[in-house]
Amino acid sequence: MPEVDYCVVGAGFAGLTAALRLKQAGRAVAVLEARDRVGGRTYTEVLADGSWVDRGGAWIGPGQDRIYALMNEFGVPSYKQYTDGKSMMVVDGKQHRYAGTIPWTVSPWATMNLGIGLMKIRQMCRSIPLEAPWEARKAAEWDKISLGAWLDKNLMSGQARDMLDVALAGPYTSAASEVSLLWMLYQMASGGGPDFVVSSKGGAQDSRPVGGMGAIYRPMAAELGDALQLSQPVRFIAQDDDGVAVRSDDLTVRARRVIVAVPLAIAGQIRYEPMLPTDRWFLHQRMPGGAIVKVSVVYDEPFWRADGLSGQTVSPGSPVTLTIDACTDTGTPGVLCVITEGPAARALGRLDEADRRATIVRELVDRFGAKAASPVGYHEQDWTVERYSGGGMISHAPTGVLTEFGPALREPCGRIHWAGTESSAVMCGWVDGAVRSGERAATEVMARETATAPA
Amino acid sequence: MPEVDYCVVGAGFAGLTAALRLKQAGRAVAVLEARDRVGGRTYTEVLADGSWVDRGGAWIGPGQDRIYALMNEFGVPSYKQYTDGKSMMVVDGKQHRYAGTIPWTVSPWATMNLGIGLMKIRQMCRSIPLEAPWEARKAAEWDKISLGAWLDKNLMSGQARDMLDVALAGPYTSAASEVSLLWMLYQMASGGGPDFVVSSKGGAQDSRPVGGMGAIYRPMAAELGDALQLSQPVRFIAQDDDGVAVRSDDLTVRARRVIVAVPLAIAGQIRYEPMLPTDRWFLHQRMPGGAIVKVSVVYDEPFWRADGLSGQTVSPGSPVTLTIDACTDTGTPGVLCVITEGPAARALGRLDEADRRATIVRELVDRFGAKAASPVGYHEQDWTVERYSGGGMISHAPTGVLTEFGPALREPCGRIHWAGTESSAVMCGWVDGAVRSGERAATEVMARETATAPA
Repeated sequence: MPEVDYCVVGAGFAGLTAALRLKQAGRAVAVLEARDRVGGRTYTEVLADGSWVDRGGAWIGPGQDRIYALMNEFGVPSYKQYTDGKSMMVVDGKQHRYAGTIPWTVSPWATMNLGIGLMKIRQMCRSIPLEAPWEARKAAEWDKISLGAWLDKNLMSGQARDMLDVALAGPYTSAASEVSLLWMLYQMASGGGPDFVVSSKGGAQDSRPVGGMGAIYRPMAAELGDALQLSQPVRFIAQDDDGVAVRSDDLTVRARRVIVAVPLAIAGQIRYEPMLPTDRWFLHQRMPGGAIVKVSVVYDEPFWRADGLSGQTVSPGSPVTLTIDACTDTGTPGVLCVITEGPAARALGRLDEADRRATIVRELVDRFGAKAASPVGYHEQDWTVERYSGGGMISHAPTGVLTEFGPALREPCGRIHWAGTESSAVMCGWVDGAVRSGERAATEVMARETATAPA
Repeated sequence: MPEVDYCVVGAGFAGLTAALRLKQAGRAVAVLEARDRVGGRTYTEVLADGSWVDRGGAWIGPGQDRIYALMNEFGVPSYKQYTDGKSMMVVDGKQHRYAGTIPWTVSPWATMNLGIGLMKIRQMCRSIPLEAPWEARKAAEWDKISLGAWLDKNLMSGQARDMLDVALAGPYTSAASEVSLLWMLYQMASGGGPDFVVSSKGGAQDSRPVGGMGAIYRPMAAELGDALQLSQPVRFIAQDDDGVAVRSDDLTVRARRVIVAVPLAIAGQIRYEPMLPTDRWFLHQRMPGGAIVKVSVVYDEPFWRADGLSGQTVSPGSPVTLTIDACTDTGTPGVLCVITEGPAARALGRLDEADRRATIVRELVDRFGAKAASPVGYHEQDWTVERYSGGGMISHAPTGVLTEFGPALREPCGRIHWAGTESSAVMCGWVDGAVRSGERAATEVMARETATAPA
């Protein structure tokens, strides 16, 4: 029964960062991770030829200073997302090529609607106080309707509606009808607004770490060394006046405080003694994960580049909602990343493996031609079957939850502190937000130490 | 390691009924209940003088044939809810007395608005197919907005809005902003419409079992005898081609199939091997419980009756949202039942015990006069701190959930079958719905037996 100063539950970026900062400050830590790997909702697979694919979170962008700081710390450079050439939007089976971020070639009417929609969202985002979105002047009104209802009401063009649905509901990987408008505005505002979210150049898909996210989390894990225990799903956390006991199936860690750095629905599967305060326990019941299937399809070369295509395509409602060029910094091999989210991802998950692969490759051939028919590698990640993520990409708040339970996102419960990207007021939902939440939680527990001893 | 035909998880009315019907059909059953008592979200306390209070679900009404059938089986009579005298609505501190169900004396404008609101809901309820509410013609539209948004848009009178908020969001014991309009319409339609829900005479509060709900669940538990194991919270359910293994901390039951009869958020705390299909595992993350504090305040006599009051009062937003006469069939002692739901219940839960009691008694004195100041008994039940209920009164679906995941409410997952009032198409949310769901699940598992052997 190891005794440490602080225990951390979960070795995604939030947990790893919290533990690292505590260790660097001279504290004894133990990190219990349920899986046999670290990284959480990021997961880099290194291929036989030394190249790599990111099976989970992959991108970084300007303003995400804390993930860049970590990369500096470990000497991980970044490279720009490939954006040359034309992108493609598929509507009713017809392919529209366009340059830039907005698929303006689909129709003038859709483009105008899309522009107005984005403008309205930009304005609404500006009125959200990031530390307390539930205090926005119109918080009550915006938290009563879903993003889906807002899209229906504010976009006259069905095509524009579908595009914004993909762009805005996509990140929650759930139906737009499930996501509170206020939550969407808050999450988007925490990254700087809709332009950041939807953009590659200068936006959330601006760059990637060389070596993938694993190039960052691997040295973090290495620095933690023996403090990190894999395959230890935490079942039970007890706290009393003296400290906490954190229990997995075959390990109990005693510590002064614990930082729980797992998604909310997963935190809700841990038993707490005594029970958590009502608002936190209810929050755990109210912030679900979504469905996302991410597939890295590998070719000898990024042939689409030579064909004048960026690799980025959008096809609302199709089994391949999004594609994006996901080559490494060297540009070889060619990697197309397929991202399918929400209801379409659940449908894809119901197919058997061969059918799913055939469906995806067929879609790629439709968009990129016959050369797409013969991939040399195929790496599929269905986050809905990740028991310890509870789905992907990020949790969302349904209507009413942020206004009723928002403060519980970060509020410690006695000796239990909370990390995870969903608890970050800045870059909430991105890897950078996870890093920030870990640093905030580490600061939080150390701030409670008395002058004489860690408390 | 006992081997039985069927295992049942949870001994609320759904689980008890399922197990009873299976046992009566000659099957070997085991029931694992997490608590040290049966009854689930019903809980009858027998007092020293032989009278009783229901700390949870209490009422029955016409159309609830399956709970009446159980009562016949065990010889439990019913008695009518006391409804004589005036009821009271408190608005802005002013008390308005009225006869009947609708507080028409508050203002003609509010009454008219309330009438129109109820008429609209009545009409919408009629278009809901109970077996598949997600197929209602307007299902997609109604599932995109919360009940709160609908109330804001459809009720011009703030007073009428507040009244309907109490009447309609009350049962979900959550803020109206959290509850999908479609879910509310479905749940209400499953009881016959809004008039059933809000009514005593002829409605959901028409009658009570003599002896309380315990008078029914006690003989059910007795008939199950040794098959029923208390204090066995189930942590883990594994299934393979041969059957299931159901594991609590110190017991493993092997069975051909298992019926899980606990609220959805609680079912989500059990580990399943293999993992559940995505739609069911996601549903567990998406149907939270609510907050409800129910207090039975006991007096020597029901003095309000002599004062010409029914005991029924409503005060939207106050710490005592509702009161209702809750005397036993003999009318002695006098029992006033206080029901506080949703955000007000969470606020009440944050007070310390003495403050909470003082607050409640002060409200009762305001409404019923000085005689209310000196109760002889006070029985408080805060369902938010019930670890194995996950809150009360019933789970609700946020927006988007019923249209995306509705079919998963009843669909078996291999050898795992689901019961619980939320899974009943008729009387969903009432004790009668729990009984129906238990009978349906029992029929379901037996229907899968082969000609030669139970399967």
